[in-house]
Amino acid sequence: MEPNASNNMQPDHCLGITPMEVHKVVPPPHRSTIQKLKSKLKETFFPDDPLLQFKRQPLGKKWILAAQYVFPILQWGPNYSFKLFKSDIVSGLTIASLAIPQGISYAKLASLPPIVGLYSSFVPPLVYAVLGSSRDLAVGPVSIASLILGSMLRQKVSPINDPLLFLQLAFSSTFFAGLFQASLGLLRLGFIIDFLSKAILIGFMAGAAVIVSLQQLKSLLGITHFTKQMGLVPVLSSAFHNINEWSWQTILMGFCFLVFLPLARHVSMRKPKLFWVSAGAPLVSVILSTILVFAFKAQHHGISVIGKLQEGLNPPSWNMLHFHGSNLGLVIKTGLVTGIISLTEGIAVGRTFAALKNYQVDGNKEMMAIGLMNVIGSATSCYVTTGAFSRSAVNHNAGAKTAVSNVVMSVTVMVTLLFLMPLFQYTPNVVLGAIIVTAVIGLIDFPAACQIWKIDKFDFVVMLCAFFGVVFISVQDGLAIAVAISIFKILLQVTRPKTLVLGNIPGTDIFRNLHHYKDATRIPGFLILSIEAPINFANTTYLKERILRWINEYETEEDIKKQSSIHFLILDLSAVSAIDTSGVSLFKDLKKAVENKGVELVLVNPVGEVLEKLIRADDARDIMGPDTLYLTVGEAVAALSPTMKGQSSSYV
Amino acid sequence: MEPNASNNMQPDHCLGITPMEVHKVVPPPHRSTIQKLKSKLKETFFPDDPLLQFKRQPLGKKWILAAQYVFPILQWGPNYSFKLFKSDIVSGLTIASLAIPQGISYAKLASLPPIVGLYSSFVPPLVYAVLGSSRDLAVGPVSIASLILGSMLRQKVSPINDPLLFLQLAFSSTFFAGLFQASLGLLRLGFIIDFLSKAILIGFMAGAAVIVSLQQLKSLLGITHFTKQMGLVPVLSSAFHNINEWSWQTILMGFCFLVFLPLARHVSMRKPKLFWVSAGAPLVSVILSTILVFAFKAQHHGISVIGKLQEGLNPPSWNMLHFHGSNLGLVIKTGLVTGIISLTEGIAVGRTFAALKNYQVDGNKEMMAIGLMNVIGSATSCYVTTGAFSRSAVNHNAGAKTAVSNVVMSVTVMVTLLFLMPLFQYTPNVVLGAIIVTAVIGLIDFPAACQIWKIDKFDFVVMLCAFFGVVFISVQDGLAIAVAISIFKILLQVTRPKTLVLGNIPGTDIFRNLHHYKDATRIPGFLILSIEAPINFANTTYLKERILRWINEYETEEDIKKQSSIHFLILDLSAVSAIDTSGVSLFKDLKKAVENKGVELVLVNPVGEVLEKLIRADDARDIMGPDTLYLTVGEAVAALSPTMKGQSSSYV
Repeated sequence: MEPNASNNMQPDHCLGITPMEVHKVVPPPHRSTIQKLKSKLKETFFPDDPLLQFKRQPLGKKWILAAQYVFPILQWGPNYSFKLFKSDIVSGLTIASLAIPQGISYAKLASLPPIVGLYSSFVPPLVYAVLGSSRDLAVGPVSIASLILGSMLRQKVSPINDPLLFLQLAFSSTFFAGLFQASLGLLRLGFIIDFLSKAILIGFMAGAAVIVSLQQLKSLLGITHFTKQMGLVPVLSSAFHNINEWSWQTILMGFCFLVFLPLARHVSMRKPKLFWVSAGAPLVSVILSTILVFAFKAQHHGISVIGKLQEGLNPPSWNMLHFHGSNLGLVIKTGLVTGIISLTEGIAVGRTFAALKNYQVDGNKEMMAIGLMNVIGSATSCYVTTGAFSRSAVNHNAGAKTAVSNVVMSVTVMVTLLFLMPLFQYTPNVVLGAIIVTAVIGLIDFPAACQIWKIDKFDFVVMLCAFFGVVFISVQDGLAIAVAISIFKILLQVTRPKTLVLGNIPGTDIFRNLHHYKDATRIPGFLILSIEAPINFANTTYLKERILRWINEYETEEDIKKQSSIHFLILDLSAVSAIDTSGVSLFKDLKKAVENKGVELVLVNPVGEVLEKLIRADDARDIMGPDTLYLTVGEAVAALSPTMKGQSSSYV
Repeated sequence: MEPNASNNMQPDHCLGITPMEVHKVVPPPHRSTIQKLKSKLKETFFPDDPLLQFKRQPLGKKWILAAQYVFPILQWGPNYSFKLFKSDIVSGLTIASLAIPQGISYAKLASLPPIVGLYSSFVPPLVYAVLGSSRDLAVGPVSIASLILGSMLRQKVSPINDPLLFLQLAFSSTFFAGLFQASLGLLRLGFIIDFLSKAILIGFMAGAAVIVSLQQLKSLLGITHFTKQMGLVPVLSSAFHNINEWSWQTILMGFCFLVFLPLARHVSMRKPKLFWVSAGAPLVSVILSTILVFAFKAQHHGISVIGKLQEGLNPPSWNMLHFHGSNLGLVIKTGLVTGIISLTEGIAVGRTFAALKNYQVDGNKEMMAIGLMNVIGSATSCYVTTGAFSRSAVNHNAGAKTAVSNVVMSVTVMVTLLFLMPLFQYTPNVVLGAIIVTAVIGLIDFPAACQIWKIDKFDFVVMLCAFFGVVFISVQDGLAIAVAISIFKILLQVTRPKTLVLGNIPGTDIFRNLHHYKDATRIPGFLILSIEAPINFANTTYLKERILRWINEYETEEDIKKQSSIHFLILDLSAVSAIDTSGVSLFKDLKKAVENKGVELVLVNPVGEVLEKLIRADDARDIMGPDTLYLTVGEAVAALSPTMKGQSSSYV
């Protein structure tokens, strides 16, 4: 069993690497409660240590750094060059050509007047250019947030019967979304968006894509009487109960663009150099279809068009915000949900591109920027905006260098608002439907879903719940269900922590899971368990029962083998990162319980905080005595083996 | 630095205990998804392995074991002896003397007719004697559940204006409480009660004791017009706004018993042999006060009495249960809250005494017993009952051996119900108030609160929240707030896992936290981090930021010391018990991020499940390559040190 057992020069030291010198477990250096609280709060709310750069700087420099922290434009602005501007103007114009049709389409998705979508591509990008720290984010309305905003508000107010109230509620929701986003950043609670896991987002996005696409059946088929509901079943039944309303002209036009747009997308994906094919396709479609309608007077042949749009820049809307009244609860709730969803998209997109170009995006700072942008937006006739995924990807591919590309887009939209609005009068709704469908279908990520199935079946279930919840129940309920399941899983992990039985890997002092490493062997007389979670109120009962069952199982097994019974129960606490009062009493209870069976409880390597609490609770030193506390499992086994009587240990 | 560096017999093996033989990290033995799911479900729902005893038994024996499992009376019944009966009859009579005044008092606490309290001490103990597995639990109504039941139902229905409806709702709530309890046991979801931590319960009990005691001001001061509210402020203002209603005779009598009862309790606590002093005191108080009132006709001098009580056994009440109608929501909610609270008390009491006498109580089985007892109770005019702490303590001290003591108590209560009810006609309400106050004041556990303060400040805050929530807001809200804070703490622990920087303890291959063990030293060129929590969607963002910050901090520090930069980032994953898809992608992101800094990512000892998922996700073998995966930190450092160029490692 022992390869160099014949070497007896330093038997205790070299054989099985069993150091006879036993290292003492010492309590960590003393820190006061205030110090502990301070470091805990810092770890929780300032893990990125934003004040690090201010250290060891003169006062003047500190002011400059602070101003740069609040307004990142001060950081890159002074170094801005004509060369950068050339790149930014190309990318800015490219995203503008995408922003105009998208703005109109997404506003329709939110049941808002199309012009609001354009307003929302004018003011927020300017605000973001000053406050935002991402160089690639292109700001504007996004499909998911538009969909949620519309569907939540429609539950109480009809956009057709009461369009003014609906608009007021949309602006108010935008205000609360912004307020909520900015507060999250300011209070450094940004980690809340981390609770939307990748699996949830993939399921949610796919579900939302289905829902949104189904909504487009109205424009794609040319139906005039369409259901107001969002679910799969009512929408499909509404579409097929109104077959007499289907218009073949609309369907034909829709079909053509539904072939053209994905094709353009496909070309760009194959050859990233041809990014402008995909980026320009929506604007080309809009122009083409508008010319077609105008030329053939198709609006009189069953093809519905946008109609007359108002010219001019964003009118002020702060007098339209609702801060009281019966709809306050609705707008706050809508603001919360859309705020958190759009924030998730914005932050995720910002981080993705920052990682590609190897610069840092400060999550909490971004939240403040996006939040403030929405608060200002809500006062200037804009609805919820964020960093849009599709638009930012185009921006990045078009070679954007700084946030100036957002300014270029904003100016282009401004020109459109001032002078080009009459051109959109004949734009058919069907082309907008096709643009939306193409955009959202791209959100369905099959390869990622397959990867999730391969890695983690539970995450796959969460993903399916989000998907089916969104498709069959509602957007916000689907999301809530998926988040609840995810949190339940975390709680279950805490409630049912793993306990591993460790064995010795022969010839070493390494102890590893017996059921994983087949060459690991039990040491007779010892049951060595590793507890793999913080010990707290939610799992003490389970841990006690489970540990006692390990002893029973071990003794039954050993009984059959006619081997010795357990003398020592060694608990390896290396992985126990925290403990509370219930956890502390677990050890007292456990000690009593195992002593009744003639077993001694030995603890190994409790980490700082756990050790401190155990010492404080254990006045009588009956848990933490000198013979019951060791630094490593190997040392514990080596030190305790000789004390077992009538026991020939094969370890030392 | 190295004590035996001069010994060059086996330099690699003995110095710093650096084994040159590197152990391979192998994936755990293959198990199918079904097998994994099965073992996970077993660990979650059957951690106590209730079927273990059925293994390797003949069929006949299995049937007997099953019957004994469902009816524990079959287990101890056949061996029941006269000697045991003698003990049980003494303890049974003792708890009956406590049960009668307590039953009447607690029923009043729940705003129910006093007789219902006696009914509830008759049927449920009989049911428990057949189904229950605890030998010491004495069953009956308890103060906390009575208080909650009364206060929740009173919010919607007045027990004075509509006594019949109130009674119906109380029985219906009892039915749902029982149904809920039994289902928890049947579905093996008993761990839900674990979420009521010790700290929460201590704060909650103390708060409830204050609320209950304040309610007794009505009887203790003899006030007739008293507020219906429960909060501290309205109750005190009501008591002091009705000073004109105070009756000195009542106050005097109340004061006497409020001295006598705690005194009796004190005597018993000092000398456990005199348990009967405390156990008999309430009955003595009731008899004494009743005689006094009868002798002095005190009911005409401002002392209010219980009045005429109906004779006879429990009437059936199944026709009074509400399964529909406007109050269904209320009774289900009340049933849920009272059910879970009374279950917590019953299970905790059962476990406490089982631990004292060294036998096992099966939590899920007890839940079914208590639940069934309440369902049957609700059909026989009983309200919520459970294993009462005070009564069980008396039972245990009086020498109870089996559940027969419950039967004896039940028979005694039956005799009282049949023949002795007229005797209670003149019992003054003030003595019942004094009994309740004495009982609940005993629930305030100052030493435990001090212990919690000493061990864990956060638990103390949770305790205070429960206390002040109950006192100032409401019983159920206080409880909900405390549970929410506790769960939030768990989630925070998961969201912000600890990352420890490890250093080598000189002369060993032990690696421990640098900030805890001052003799641990850094190994130049290596940053060794231990991650102390499962890695999942809620913490990947944080972990990535935190690990990159560790690298920055380390490099800044080393820069000042003019030492070398980091070549390897070693992540010790021993304490990472689980991982999900987001966690898997963390390693890919991290690898890219550190490679940009010229650092190589090395993983150490991923446990079974984590290793499996990493392998499955890592098709290209870029994370889990042969040079980036080791079994121990020591082996990783030993193997990688020679590869660093221009680097004189002090480790090997």
